[in-house]
Amino acid sequence: MQKILFNGAWTDSSSPRSQFHAFNPSTKAELKERAFPESNWQEIESIVDAAYEAAQALLETEPSTLAAFLETYAAKIEVATDRLAAIAHEETGLPVSPRLAGVEIPRTINQIRQAAAAARSGDWARPTLDTENNIHSMHGPLGGPVVVFGPNNFPFAYNGIAGGDFASAIAAGNPVIAKAHPAHPYTTQLLAELAQEAANEMGLPSGTVQLFYGTAPENGLKLVAHPKVAAVGFTGSRPGGLALKEAADKAGTPIYLEMSSVNPVFVLPGALEERGPEIGKELHASCTLGAGQFCTKPGLVVLQESKEASALIEQMAESFSQTPPGILLTGGGVKAVSNAVEQLKAAGAKVAAGGNVANTAHFGYEPTLLTVDGDTFLANPSELQSEAFGSVCLVVTATDIEQLKAVAAALEGNLTGSIYSESQGRDDDSYAGLAKTLRTKVGRLLNDKVPTGVAVCPSMNHGGPYPATGHPGFTAVGFPASVIRFSALHSYDNVREHRLPVALRKKNPTGTLNRLVNGKWTTADA
Amino acid sequence: MQKILFNGAWTDSSSPRSQFHAFNPSTKAELKERAFPESNWQEIESIVDAAYEAAQALLETEPSTLAAFLETYAAKIEVATDRLAAIAHEETGLPVSPRLAGVEIPRTINQIRQAAAAARSGDWARPTLDTENNIHSMHGPLGGPVVVFGPNNFPFAYNGIAGGDFASAIAAGNPVIAKAHPAHPYTTQLLAELAQEAANEMGLPSGTVQLFYGTAPENGLKLVAHPKVAAVGFTGSRPGGLALKEAADKAGTPIYLEMSSVNPVFVLPGALEERGPEIGKELHASCTLGAGQFCTKPGLVVLQESKEASALIEQMAESFSQTPPGILLTGGGVKAVSNAVEQLKAAGAKVAAGGNVANTAHFGYEPTLLTVDGDTFLANPSELQSEAFGSVCLVVTATDIEQLKAVAAALEGNLTGSIYSESQGRDDDSYAGLAKTLRTKVGRLLNDKVPTGVAVCPSMNHGGPYPATGHPGFTAVGFPASVIRFSALHSYDNVREHRLPVALRKKNPTGTLNRLVNGKWTTADA
Repeated sequence: MQKILFNGAWTDSSSPRSQFHAFNPSTKAELKERAFPESNWQEIESIVDAAYEAAQALLETEPSTLAAFLETYAAKIEVATDRLAAIAHEETGLPVSPRLAGVEIPRTINQIRQAAAAARSGDWARPTLDTENNIHSMHGPLGGPVVVFGPNNFPFAYNGIAGGDFASAIAAGNPVIAKAHPAHPYTTQLLAELAQEAANEMGLPSGTVQLFYGTAPENGLKLVAHPKVAAVGFTGSRPGGLALKEAADKAGTPIYLEMSSVNPVFVLPGALEERGPEIGKELHASCTLGAGQFCTKPGLVVLQESKEASALIEQMAESFSQTPPGILLTGGGVKAVSNAVEQLKAAGAKVAAGGNVANTAHFGYEPTLLTVDGDTFLANPSELQSEAFGSVCLVVTATDIEQLKAVAAALEGNLTGSIYSESQGRDDDSYAGLAKTLRTKVGRLLNDKVPTGVAVCPSMNHGGPYPATGHPGFTAVGFPASVIRFSALHSYDNVREHRLPVALRKKNPTGTLNRLVNGKWTTADA
Repeated sequence: MQKILFNGAWTDSSSPRSQFHAFNPSTKAELKERAFPESNWQEIESIVDAAYEAAQALLETEPSTLAAFLETYAAKIEVATDRLAAIAHEETGLPVSPRLAGVEIPRTINQIRQAAAAARSGDWARPTLDTENNIHSMHGPLGGPVVVFGPNNFPFAYNGIAGGDFASAIAAGNPVIAKAHPAHPYTTQLLAELAQEAANEMGLPSGTVQLFYGTAPENGLKLVAHPKVAAVGFTGSRPGGLALKEAADKAGTPIYLEMSSVNPVFVLPGALEERGPEIGKELHASCTLGAGQFCTKPGLVVLQESKEASALIEQMAESFSQTPPGILLTGGGVKAVSNAVEQLKAAGAKVAAGGNVANTAHFGYEPTLLTVDGDTFLANPSELQSEAFGSVCLVVTATDIEQLKAVAAALEGNLTGSIYSESQGRDDDSYAGLAKTLRTKVGRLLNDKVPTGVAVCPSMNHGGPYPATGHPGFTAVGFPASVIRFSALHSYDNVREHRLPVALRKKNPTGTLNRLVNGKWTTADA
């Protein structure tokens, strides 16, 4: 039985009778060599207690120490890249190269380093000084742990113990309780080993990073509502996210969710005429990348009826048919995709390619293209926005531009929305109205581009209106913005100078810290 | 029957049989000359539809137009100060001078002007440009209306149609649906008249500002969960706030709440010895100001047992006894204070002064001082933190500094927390541990100062952890920070330059807009 990471030490679980194994999705075989414990409530509560102690100790930890921890951790991941990629490949079926070793692990390291830079610079905390009335404010740690639930599809970049939520929560000065995703527990354990080594080397409080692998669903709900838990990060399915949201909301605990998105792509008539086949290739590639298991996979394409539209659908049907089924992460994932396709069909979508569970040695579902006309979509927009987490795409054909805009107006909140338009401006009139509608429905609005590929940069918004996430004002990716989620606003009124955080004292502590001083952003002393 | 403000016009309510009157709290007399309608669901839904149309139109309204509207509105309030103050006095019993005409109305005007300045400068939206990958982001309007419920205690500064939530929501580019507080409906109507005049003059979409006076509680819950409602602002009681929160949370709608706070004040032994009588005077003045009807009224004072502590309690009991009962805003408020005092007594608090409904021509409750020892407090911390919205203060006497810190650790989230300490540093050791505990329990930490008096400045945090509010990261007072609550993060990926909001184009639109360009804050062009 593998050990949990509890209060700074790798510890036997106190509930050894309840356990699970991961699977190798490439062979559908259970990975029997390692059993992972399902923690009982008592164990979860001990973890929370230790994390709360750590949270209190972290209130007095310098941001530079947090930054050094993150940098040390990133360096350890970098050194361990090959081993991590090999284990993650076994547990997820994702290719070692380029995906894991060449893309996702470097992105993860980069994210952790950006979080370190954010902690070190301090800009994320928006220090604000008003010298005349001697009131100052900045964002600071929450005083309790952040619980992070990572998803199945990114064993590194969104891992509860290494991903964006983890790095953001630490940069803001909070401890993290990570729940491993059951699809890649050993990958997560290896990451946690590196994290704990780095925490030891930097002398962080012992419960700063903790890991458990699983627990009964009711314990998950109790955990997010625990009075000592200060915030929650969750990336995963909509039903799971909504259950956690309800529990956290009732307890008044901020919860940041990334739950679902069909990432609509609108291709306007001019663009179709100008470069339909090229766009078809991009859509196919984006939809089948990583077997379609991306939060930003384009799952809904909206066209206006035309011979070019028909040709695009024909081309996509052909390319979807000819694409071998990729490896899905779990057996449950195969069922979920299958159910979603059936739901789309029941709501009136027609299969143009694929549509079956793959007859393969690995977990898989055939790349699937479905079509539906605009009238049918508008008659049942909710069912026809069901997310299928795989290479599944529904093409909606609208009778005219007005109906295409009506489809946009009927959309739920999404992470992304794309509009392809003709390069010389022929579609500009249609674009304006469509973009206006789409703008408040999505976190990231794209032009002439598929939504897969999430750049980790300050302007990224990996977020969007409900039900894509739980709040439209926050991003899960990109620094410094993602850090602020795991903080509280702290105002200091008439607090004596030597008692203030250094970021709020008269002297700018680094000479480069950007502060709002008496209404003006400046790096000068106050 | 008074008219509601619906879609740009003063309109007869469609449910005239359901109505209410306000009261004059100075005389307990019903103000029979004006009846205000209680809107039915159909009427509420029409208001929402009109507001949603306005929200869509506002997506294309320039920030400078919003700013001009706010400035015009502020000017109209300024001109109407005397009349507004007179009517508000009649409905609230708050003194015309200095409170209403000299303090609150000028503060309200100042807030609206600061919101206008925020809209005009655009800094609040945090424009972020990454030129290399052509991704840019900023905060923008929500695309739907914001519903604002104002409280009873500030007929202007927190009014649903004139206060901080209103001004912030408009500055971010959203329409507002205001629900008048039933204690001052005519004041609210007069404000709405000025707001609509200003909206007409600036040519804002017709449903940008709307007003209704009341509705059945279940309609309030349906309203905040309406799919077209984009966000909610609420200031008021905890039960009311929690009911709205549950409904909004279920619908995935951001809700910003200010619900309750006892605003603990810790007086350390050195400060007590040094200036006990002076502190006692400050506490008494702060607690009885405005008949104690401030969100930031100090309702809990924590001392360490000593002869100075006993003297302070004696002094405060004396001054509380000698203070005539102020005017409470409503008859319901008298009952609520009375219930809270009974609850405190039932939990072990002893009355040292007051403790009865006032025998006066106006709504009132005797200024009331209660005491409880630290052991009793710690045995029942939840009941003993019941908020009494009046001149009621509970003094906790701790056996020693450790118990005083334990009291701090047992506190719920509060708007403010104050620590008085000796001026030469004698209390500094105790201060450090206490401040650490208090810091994550309150939005604003004060030194040597009572919490009443909320400066409207960028560093203010009128917020705090649950259950003082619904989220620890936001403030309801202070610009630009309060504006961000009513916005969504909008990322633009590969969007053509001429389609970007001007704030995200290469050229800095004002030359002074602060933008994060390629990781550096600057006012230069990108």
